[in-house]
Amino acid sequence: MADTDPKGPSVLRVPEGDNRERLVCPDCGFIQYENPKIVAGAVCTWGEKILLCRRAIEPRRDYWTLPAGYLELNETTLEGAIREAWEEALAIIEIDALLSIYSIPRISQVQLFYRARLLTPEIGVGPESLEVGLFDWEEIPWDRLSFPTVRWALHHYRETRDLTDFAARTNPTGENGNY
Amino acid sequence: MADTDPKGPSVLRVPEGDNRERLVCPDCGFIQYENPKIVAGAVCTWGEKILLCRRAIEPRRDYWTLPAGYLELNETTLEGAIREAWEEALAIIEIDALLSIYSIPRISQVQLFYRARLLTPEIGVGPESLEVGLFDWEEIPWDRLSFPTVRWALHHYRETRDLTDFAARTNPTGENGNY
Repeated sequence: MADTDPKGPSVLRVPEGDNRERLVCPDCGFIQYENPKIVAGAVCTWGEKILLCRRAIEPRRDYWTLPAGYLELNETTLEGAIREAWEEALAIIEIDALLSIYSIPRISQVQLFYRARLLTPEIGVGPESLEVGLFDWEEIPWDRLSFPTVRWALHHYRETRDLTDFAARTNPTGENGNY
Repeated sequence: MADTDPKGPSVLRVPEGDNRERLVCPDCGFIQYENPKIVAGAVCTWGEKILLCRRAIEPRRDYWTLPAGYLELNETTLEGAIREAWEEALAIIEIDALLSIYSIPRISQVQLFYRARLLTPEIGVGPESLEVGLFDWEEIPWDRLSFPTVRWALHHYRETRDLTDFAARTNPTGENGNY
């Protein structure tokens, strides 16, 4: 390991046989092929109530979010959504349907939200949460939600809650997920 | 740049504050957070005919595929599917609906296929294709398709072709995308 601060892939170059610039490490020559990341999450319900978590980490620490996070290697999107509900809210869920798929190009994310049922109302605070709770629709802290996609997913859940076979919702018209 | 062969992130270590091993570069200390990749593609039709491309590159060179490829940074999934149809078949398409979303955990991919219309029947061979063509259902070279997900997407297209509001299809039961 270099005794200076690691630079990592930090120089833009078009690798041989490629058609766009990639980040290359000036120390070791490693080419970093960076691709968009997948976030998997769920709107988890117990009866009429919806599971929300108050974030313990940045960005948007202290704001309320739906359990969701980066998909890991060798994981299916369903497994990712189930894992995140467990990690963030100690919730055991059953996936019911694909609710929505959002693209947030500015931060190169594709976010998938599922509709899910809590198998038990027992929930708890995971390492990335300060607080977790089950909210009636009227109780949702709309002015304290962490991200636009959380608001979208909640409204798309409300809109499709009585449907069994429906097209996954996408970004609201004209919205790109920026604040 | 090191004068020896670049190692790149090649040592497994659990970074501080993380809960799993990541690849770290022994030369420069760079931590590579590797995540699953998103593939965006489309079943593109002109009337009854379906667009297929014969691959010019490995893996599965010479086998027939649907236009699809890795989503790039700052790209929406729709933009990715439209770009790939252009790059691989010089096809200009209009996306109609989300057809399917497949997880292939072994290779850490999530593949999204859209249902799309060709805006003109003019197609051509892009750099990654040896040949492109418009096939009637009966003409599809089933025994020469490149990947299981191509077969799945074609059948899911056939199954949903007359539907306007339908749930995106997923991996056929028990199938993980391996050969």
